[in-house]
Order: sequence, then structure tokens, then C-alpha cells
Amino acid sequence: MNIAILFGGSSFEHEISIVSAITLKKVLKQSTLRFIFVSPTRAFYLIEPEQMKAKFFSSGGYKKLKPLTLKQGGFFQESLFGAKEVACDGVLNLIHGRDGEDGTMASLLSFYGVPFISPRTEASVLSYNKLYTKFFAKSVGVKSVPFQHFQKGQTQTLSFDFPVIVKPVRLGSSIGVSIVKEASAFEYALDVAFEYDSDVIVEPFLEGVKEYNQAGCYTHDWELSFIEEPQKEEFLDFEKKYMDFSRDGSVEEATLEEGLKEKIQESFQKIYHPLFAGSVIRCDFFVVNGEVLLNEINPIPGSMANYLFRDFEAMIERLFLHLPKERNIGVDYQYIHSIHSAKGKA
Amino acid sequence: MNIAILFGGSSFEHEISIVSAITLKKVLKQSTLRFIFVSPTRAFYLIEPEQMKAKFFSSGGYKKLKPLTLKQGGFFQESLFGAKEVACDGVLNLIHGRDGEDGTMASLLSFYGVPFISPRTEASVLSYNKLYTKFFAKSVGVKSVPFQHFQKGQTQTLSFDFPVIVKPVRLGSSIGVSIVKEASAFEYALDVAFEYDSDVIVEPFLEGVKEYNQAGCYTHDWELSFIEEPQKEEFLDFEKKYMDFSRDGSVEEATLEEGLKEKIQESFQKIYHPLFAGSVIRCDFFVVNGEVLLNEINPIPGSMANYLFRDFEAMIERLFLHLPKERNIGVDYQYIHSIHSAKGKA
Repeated sequence: MNIAILFGGSSFEHEISIVSAITLKKVLKQSTLRFIFVSPTRAFYLIEPEQMKAKFFSSGGYKKLKPLTLKQGGFFQESLFGAKEVACDGVLNLIHGRDGEDGTMASLLSFYGVPFISPRTEASVLSYNKLYTKFFAKSVGVKSVPFQHFQKGQTQTLSFDFPVIVKPVRLGSSIGVSIVKEASAFEYALDVAFEYDSDVIVEPFLEGVKEYNQAGCYTHDWELSFIEEPQKEEFLDFEKKYMDFSRDGSVEEATLEEGLKEKIQESFQKIYHPLFAGSVIRCDFFVVNGEVLLNEINPIPGSMANYLFRDFEAMIERLFLHLPKERNIGVDYQYIHSIHSAKGKA
Repeated sequence: MNIAILFGGSSFEHEISIVSAITLKKVLKQSTLRFIFVSPTRAFYLIEPEQMKAKFFSSGGYKKLKPLTLKQGGFFQESLFGAKEVACDGVLNLIHGRDGEDGTMASLLSFYGVPFISPRTEASVLSYNKLYTKFFAKSVGVKSVPFQHFQKGQTQTLSFDFPVIVKPVRLGSSIGVSIVKEASAFEYALDVAFEYDSDVIVEPFLEGVKEYNQAGCYTHDWELSFIEEPQKEEFLDFEKKYMDFSRDGSVEEATLEEGLKEKIQESFQKIYHPLFAGSVIRCDFFVVNGEVLLNEINPIPGSMANYLFRDFEAMIERLFLHLPKERNIGVDYQYIHSIHSAKGKA
């Protein structure tokens, strides 16, 4: 297959998207790959595979290239001799954070009729916002960690014991997130979070609970990954985050007590179907007293969570063949014709 | 001001968007207007003001024009002599239904840095989906009509008495909506709704309740419209709908019992702020036993509900001066530089 990997974007996670794209270059060995970079100022550039090195971007090397134009059907390179399409069978959206996970890219690619792997606009908006993720999970019968919603400018009393975790509801990475261990630090943590967002959620900080990651997608059938028990860290520093987004090895499957695997898989499927059709997502679950709670949905996980799958590349090819189809809306101007004939009679 | 009106789209409401745009041409008398048409196949065309007649579109007259290209900063007319920008101070998104109200246009205009009036992507997605509208209203402390959520493929017992109203959760217009008066007709109504959507909500059909419409926006201060008590019709046929989208007169203000106006305004403000910044929306409320319940949010109301405002045009100009600003994300490649220096040391 001929796959275009879309990465970069005007996002706090711009740089780790570059790392993700470089990783997928190593993983997708059988495919013909195109690399389309979205610069911090949101111009599209076609990057040659041999230029797919972090330095090429940090040094601004891409700025010498001529930007691409997105039009009906695909990305085009314009020249004096006309527009030439960047040939690809589909786009893999690998932009983390803003532009990629907030519904922007999904909207652009849908509007311009470009086949793509990524959550669609609605799924993106719901999973990009931690508050709406809670509502959505509840509506499909999946429990999540209890929370309290704080809005900027409103006073409210905290109803959980410490420690708690304070999170701005948007922003993908851990920016503005604090773990608060005592009351004296709570107001400050709220203020920090409100620097980034008008809405904040506060959850009890669950210590010592088991965490499990499940990734997957639906092609002609369910394609569920191994379940991984990730290493616990309060926060990931940049080197650990780099490791996380550049993972391309395979992973050790978690050892689970009887029945837990099925519970996690069932929760994943309830979240995924039908809203996330066309995407590969990773759900992070907590298990508390045998109950599976959704912690978060990663709509575009680092390096697409390739390391959780036995044959990631073959799955991606199958997914491109099973993308959701948009409803065809025929406009026949019947309505305008009717008005005109009604007016004609008057 | 120089305002570009964006209308049409790949939407069941394509034709009434044309009617809305023609109406606004009559209303916005002081402004210089550009008209940008989105064809059913999603090409952009610049339409001359004198061609703004329904017939021009239904006859396909626009197909002879050369499409525009959307690029960073605006819409461009390409020619052999280069690209010429369609000059405008901002865009008024008047596409009803899909493309306009589902977040697509908001994503495109935000990404390409074009100032626009319309709900942003997140606000669009939440108000386009009747189920998420319920969750959202609850999260900001506004009550709505009680409902039951049905998912395709799941069996569930109805917990309301008849009559009920069955609605697919997406789709703007009344497509797929049924009022069901007795149990024998319920399954059929559900099947009809599931033809259009995987998710359906069922609400008690409230007969004889008062309905009030409140429109508005926030500029440097609240700008709230008159409150109108709309004429009641179970369903609007095409001529009534045409009337509704071509309204440009002014409206009779509803006579409200003491304190009700304030309750309606307060509910509107809770819905609007801060999610709907940059848009003019209309909220339709029911009043049941003195309690204000949200019925629906019209993120892009017909003809922008201009008839509810004393000086609609001046308000639109003020709103263009108070559009929400996107957070500036500077990408400094610190992270990649750190990785490189860490690697260098190793």
C-alpha cells in the first residue's frame, strides 16, 4: 500500500509527533510511505523519506520546500505546469494533540474526501475533552474514575479526600496537570489548570491500582491488541516520553486474573463501536476492586501503539479497506423547485 | 465591513442554506458582502451578488465558475497570473446541517486562520448531537427534557408513557423524527430513526407547553435578543420552513410572567459562555411548571435569527471584533534538541 503519514501540527505535541512518524517509518516496512508534515504555522510539506530525521525539522530545513495544497481528493504540489497529486491510497493521521486529536484534521480530510485512519471529528472532540469522555463513557455503559467538574470563575467545594489529581479538560499531554497531596496546595493547582482551560476536572488520585492498556480497531472483525500493564510513573519526563513515542518492539502481555481480560476487552469494544470506526485507539483502564474503570482514551496513541500488535502493518492495511463511509447526500433542488412552482401559482 | 457569507454545503439543508444567504443579503445592508458557495460536491465558488437567486443554484449555473482554494489566510482565486485572495474581514458561516453545524467548517476556518462567526469545532459537535447536548446542558447546570438513549442493536424497554418523540441524535432538520402516540407504532418509529443514525433519543412529547426562543451572543457584553414565542406546529412543511429561513422582519416580543425572562436569559448565558464564543446561536426552551428546560440549541439558526434583534447588522460587526483568539503554541524544538544533546553525551 501507498500510505501518507501526516504529522507535526500546531500542537504542544508537535515534536513527539515527529518522533512517532520516524518510528512508524521503521515499523511499516512493506508499504510505500509518503510523509506529509504540518508545520507549526500549518503549512503542508511533502518530506522525502531520507529527510525523516528530527534534526531536519528542528533546523527548519523543511522551510525551503514548496508547500502542498489540500483540495478535493488529496494533497497537491502546485507548479507552473499545473497541480500534481501526491499519490497515496490513504492518510494515517499521526498528529498528537491540537490539530490532530481535536477533530481538525478529521474535518479537513473528510471534507476533501481523502481516505484516512484516525477518529472522525465527533469521536475526536469527545476523546480530546476529558469531561466529555466521562459523559460518553457513561452513555455506552463504561464506568470511569469519579470526578468533579470545576468551571473558571465559580466557587465550589472539593468533595474528595486528598490526594487528588487536577486536570485541564482539553490538552493531550500532562500540561497543567497536578497531583495534590494536601488542602493547602489545592487552590494553586486549580489556578495552574485554569491557566490552560476554562474547565478542569478533579479526580481522586488512585494509588496502587493496576493499570492496563488495550488498543485495537474494527476491520472486518475485531482486532484487539495484547493488554499491557504499563510501567508506573507519576509523570513521564522527556526521555521516558521519547521512549514511549518511539517504541517499535513488541511488548510483554500482562498476566491477568481470570475473567479480567474479557472485561477489559468488552469495555474497549463498548467505547470503540461505532463512534471510533476508522481509527486505532488505545484505552487506558484502571482496575479497582475487580471493576474496570476507563482512565483515558488515546485517540492517536504514540507511534499508534504498534508495539501492542502482532502484525501491525497487516492490520493497518485491513483498516484502510474498512474505513467508515460517509452518508451520501444527494441535493436535487426539489425544495427550491417547489417554492418556485408555488410562487408561480400565486 | 467586508463580510463573506459561506453557504450551501453537502447537507440535507443545502437548499435552505441558500434561502438563508439570500435573506441575509437583504438584512446586511451597510456591509460589503461576498458570497462563497459550497457546492454539493464541496467545491468553493465565489458568487456575484446579482447571482444570489435560488434559480442560479438549482440550475447549476455556478458550475461554470472556477472554484476557489482555501489556503492559510483565506479563499483564493487561482489563475495563470497567480492566486488572488477574496478580500474579506471575516466569514459568516451560514451552512446549516452537515459541513456547517457538525464542526467541519469551523475546523477548516480555524486551521486556515480565517476569522469567522460560527460555533467552534467543539461547540459544533456538542450541539449537532442531541444526546451530547443533554450531557453538556447538565454539566453547565441547565435542565433539559428527560430522555432515554437507544443504541442500534440493543433491546431496551421504553420508560415513558405515550405520546413520545423519537429523534436520531445527529441530523439538523426533522428527518427521521416521529411523534408516536401509541405502543403499536413505537418499534416502527425506532426503525425509521435507526435508518439515519446509530443513536436515537426518545423523549416524552410535551403537549401544550409554552416554547420560547432566545438568541444572542457575547461581544464586549451580552447581546441578547427579544424572546419569541414561536407558532406551534407539529412539523413544518416546506413552505413554513421556507418562511422560517427567509424571515427578515422583526418579531413580536413574547409576554412573559414575572421572572421568566430572567430565567430564560440566565439559561441561555450558561449554555453560551464560554463554549459558544464567536457565534450567534438560538436556544429553544420549554417552560414546564415554571421550570425552564432546554429543548435544543440551534448553532446556526435560519437566517441567523436576525429578526430577533433590534440592530442585527451592528451586532454582527461588534462580534467580528470580539472573536475568540486561539492559544498561540510556540514550537521551539527544545525537546528534540534535548534528546540530541542527551544522545551526544552518551
